[in-house]
Amino acid sequence: MNGADALITTLADNGVTACFANPGTSEMQFVAALDREPRMRSVLCLFEGVATGAADGYGRMTGTPACTLLHLGPGYANGAANLHNARRAFTPVVNIIGDHAVGHRQYDAPLNSDIAALAAPNSLWIKSADSADAVGPLAAEAVAASLGAPGGGACLILPADSAWNATAVAGPVVGRPRFGVPDPVAVAAAAKAVKAAAKPVLLLGSGACGEAAIAAAGRIAAAGVRVLTDTFTARQARGEGRFRPDKLPYFGEQALKDLEGVDLMVLVATTEPVAFFAYPDRPSVLVPDGCATLTLSDRSTDAAAALEALAELLGAPATGAVESYAPPPAPAGKLDAWVMGAAIARHMPAGAIVSDDAVTAGLPIFTQTRNARAHDWLSLTGGAIGQGIPLAIGAAVACPDRKVLSLNGDGAAMYTVQGLWTIARERLDVTVVVFANHAYRILGIEMGRTGGGEPGPAASRLLDLGDPRIDWVSVASGLGVAAERVETAEAFDEAMARAMREPGPRLIEAAMR
Amino acid sequence: MNGADALITTLADNGVTACFANPGTSEMQFVAALDREPRMRSVLCLFEGVATGAADGYGRMTGTPACTLLHLGPGYANGAANLHNARRAFTPVVNIIGDHAVGHRQYDAPLNSDIAALAAPNSLWIKSADSADAVGPLAAEAVAASLGAPGGGACLILPADSAWNATAVAGPVVGRPRFGVPDPVAVAAAAKAVKAAAKPVLLLGSGACGEAAIAAAGRIAAAGVRVLTDTFTARQARGEGRFRPDKLPYFGEQALKDLEGVDLMVLVATTEPVAFFAYPDRPSVLVPDGCATLTLSDRSTDAAAALEALAELLGAPATGAVESYAPPPAPAGKLDAWVMGAAIARHMPAGAIVSDDAVTAGLPIFTQTRNARAHDWLSLTGGAIGQGIPLAIGAAVACPDRKVLSLNGDGAAMYTVQGLWTIARERLDVTVVVFANHAYRILGIEMGRTGGGEPGPAASRLLDLGDPRIDWVSVASGLGVAAERVETAEAFDEAMARAMREPGPRLIEAAMR
Repeated sequence: MNGADALITTLADNGVTACFANPGTSEMQFVAALDREPRMRSVLCLFEGVATGAADGYGRMTGTPACTLLHLGPGYANGAANLHNARRAFTPVVNIIGDHAVGHRQYDAPLNSDIAALAAPNSLWIKSADSADAVGPLAAEAVAASLGAPGGGACLILPADSAWNATAVAGPVVGRPRFGVPDPVAVAAAAKAVKAAAKPVLLLGSGACGEAAIAAAGRIAAAGVRVLTDTFTARQARGEGRFRPDKLPYFGEQALKDLEGVDLMVLVATTEPVAFFAYPDRPSVLVPDGCATLTLSDRSTDAAAALEALAELLGAPATGAVESYAPPPAPAGKLDAWVMGAAIARHMPAGAIVSDDAVTAGLPIFTQTRNARAHDWLSLTGGAIGQGIPLAIGAAVACPDRKVLSLNGDGAAMYTVQGLWTIARERLDVTVVVFANHAYRILGIEMGRTGGGEPGPAASRLLDLGDPRIDWVSVASGLGVAAERVETAEAFDEAMARAMREPGPRLIEAAMR
Repeated sequence: MNGADALITTLADNGVTACFANPGTSEMQFVAALDREPRMRSVLCLFEGVATGAADGYGRMTGTPACTLLHLGPGYANGAANLHNARRAFTPVVNIIGDHAVGHRQYDAPLNSDIAALAAPNSLWIKSADSADAVGPLAAEAVAASLGAPGGGACLILPADSAWNATAVAGPVVGRPRFGVPDPVAVAAAAKAVKAAAKPVLLLGSGACGEAAIAAAGRIAAAGVRVLTDTFTARQARGEGRFRPDKLPYFGEQALKDLEGVDLMVLVATTEPVAFFAYPDRPSVLVPDGCATLTLSDRSTDAAAALEALAELLGAPATGAVESYAPPPAPAGKLDAWVMGAAIARHMPAGAIVSDDAVTAGLPIFTQTRNARAHDWLSLTGGAIGQGIPLAIGAAVACPDRKVLSLNGDGAAMYTVQGLWTIARERLDVTVVVFANHAYRILGIEMGRTGGGEPGPAASRLLDLGDPRIDWVSVASGLGVAAERVETAEAFDEAMARAMREPGPRLIEAAMR
């Protein structure tokens, strides 16, 4: 056994059995060792941002980390944006970052860089295994660190010689993290404050949007407390049979209008809401004047248990109201995000997973699918576009029996377009929708809000994707994914019906203007 | 005038007139200000790695920085790999990284991250302009820092409010850097050592490969001293009328064999050569036993002047031997990198610029073009693949009257494939060649060298790009670039002849097996 074997064995022993990889020379021993550990499924990604986003999707769906395999500092950096998103989603991810052999580092060869410095902003834990004997134990530490609770990114730097040298040391199996039990004092305080408040709301973060927590929140809603979620959550159980909370609006002034008169905000697995961006003369904190905030439970606490406990103290009914399957009628006419949302709601099968990087098209589709069949919705938690395709890859690898729907603005889809190839290679059951409005539409809206005024010709050119128009059918076909373009609501509805019925990779370009 | 105006005016006053951009909400004021400063040309890139690689190409060709416009930490991270390459090329680049408004940072909104930490490994200089009045002066500082000498990356973090607030302060025009005059003592010592050595060599780094330095090195070669360059140089003047140094081989054992018996290595704008990667039981430092090393001039010194001074002390002839235009005969038969190199050498016009991200195809083409018309060759200095298309964009923007040839392995081209769109949009005179061998071929070679043995099925799958095969004609067409596939030497020669004759964007997929 060499260090690479010790690593993969330790990972597999700890349940880490998916590796999203783009290896280089310094990772060849890891690659070779994959043939000696059948438990590990390796998935080649043609760009590291695909690999890290896939690991995020996998981790969101399983609660167990996937590993990535990245090539030194530049390989890590290429994956950092989606690790930023994963950090904001509290997803467990173990990054294996190959490095020069320990003795070679001092020579500052061309690919040398300060990996730990690059990785620090998005990592809970970073260590370098500077001997073969250190690899297994540190791999176990990395898994434990990534699991949290809450979860996050752990980076194990693997010098080439630590991988190729012999060792007899594998790492231990680490315990699963336990989210803390709710603090009875905090629960009692929340119950008392809610009862005393004129207009209380409950705000759920990512950790409070799983099936059990959402159900408990539904009980509290049934007791008369309005429930909202953060604007972007890592994974939310929605649709038929689930309680439907409201969503805090993206734009700060809409959020504050929505929260007008609220005198108590109870936070569950989240912190005080803030505006996504700052704007001239607008507040950053989205808590109305005169509204108290109070934390029921933090991110390291079992949110479902905390919500159940609160429901009990509030005397809530045993179950709250849940959505039924009530899809919108078949859409007709002009293609826009609302009619596309209707089509998706009509055809999305039970158990579907939605990876949302749809930017301006996202909210209409989210709204339209409230009465769709039961599904999980994965949001862009960190604001770094280019997550939609990679996250879908990871979700599909994690859940091969579930349909995965990847929703992407055209600008966002271009960021990690290489992921289409991996979807094709792995024959993943992913339907990629690209909303081709030929613009960074959101920026056209934000330009005015930030005081930039009407864009002139130079500015307009930086917001426009229409010259040349991207032919998504051609791009996807070239990467091995069957694709079609639709231009009407009817055609989109038909294409979605087929895509949801038939398994396998496909792409739908929704030509929006 | 607001901070964004102060920034763009200061940049333009300092000769920074190209901006490779992918903006977001926090950069909208910068975008709006572009319409008030006609000197700045902005070029939209659909991924930040394209923007930073383009800035590298621009800087290599002009010696003046371009700026990039990047969206907070994730936007910077997406561009970091090509900034790693730029760092290794000593290219001046000014990165403008938008950030949250100063007062908004404390709330850790979703896109917040430690930008300075992310940027540190690849930056000479990083500052945040935390008021509108600070923007102009810091922009001037950033330009000065990027220029060096030698050059490098400077990062100006631009909080949104520093851009939108009013200011009356623009930054000064900074002086151009002066590379130092050669140290006469070092030159005399080098001359003495060369005369005393039995088998001396001169090793040129990136800063010693410009037209004047290469000519001076040619004089020294004519005096009987073998001249080599580093394996990867930022920009090398080559072809007709230029002296042709040898290139240090990539693989360490080949380099040491090549240097066998050498007893003196004189370093010019470089340091002791080291292996690109470490391998079991092989040396890291590529200096033969018993070989002394001596630095004629470091990277901050005028290399051409140092070489001229050395040539004088060695009594070298006034001019060295130069290459004449002597292209290989028309190639025929099977398509491989050697015959493609022949075709390129035959048709590449004088003044062409070659952006080399061709990996295993690179050396044969480099070799074949030694007698091509005069051209500049830009190498992958930092080993982070995905540079070939972006660098070509920057070179083409910098030099609109010169033909640009972008050579790419298929694996490398996928990294920043989004750049094809920018080539189309800007109607750049770039011919992109993709060497479609459907594999990370170099890794197949490196697997054995690192002791990984014969790849089994799992390992093979991580080195293979052939399932599915990427249809580059389809991908390029979808992104607006006219493309063709060629499968024989004759067809490649014809396609290259057309591409070199006719201006405008095009892609040639060279189907290599």
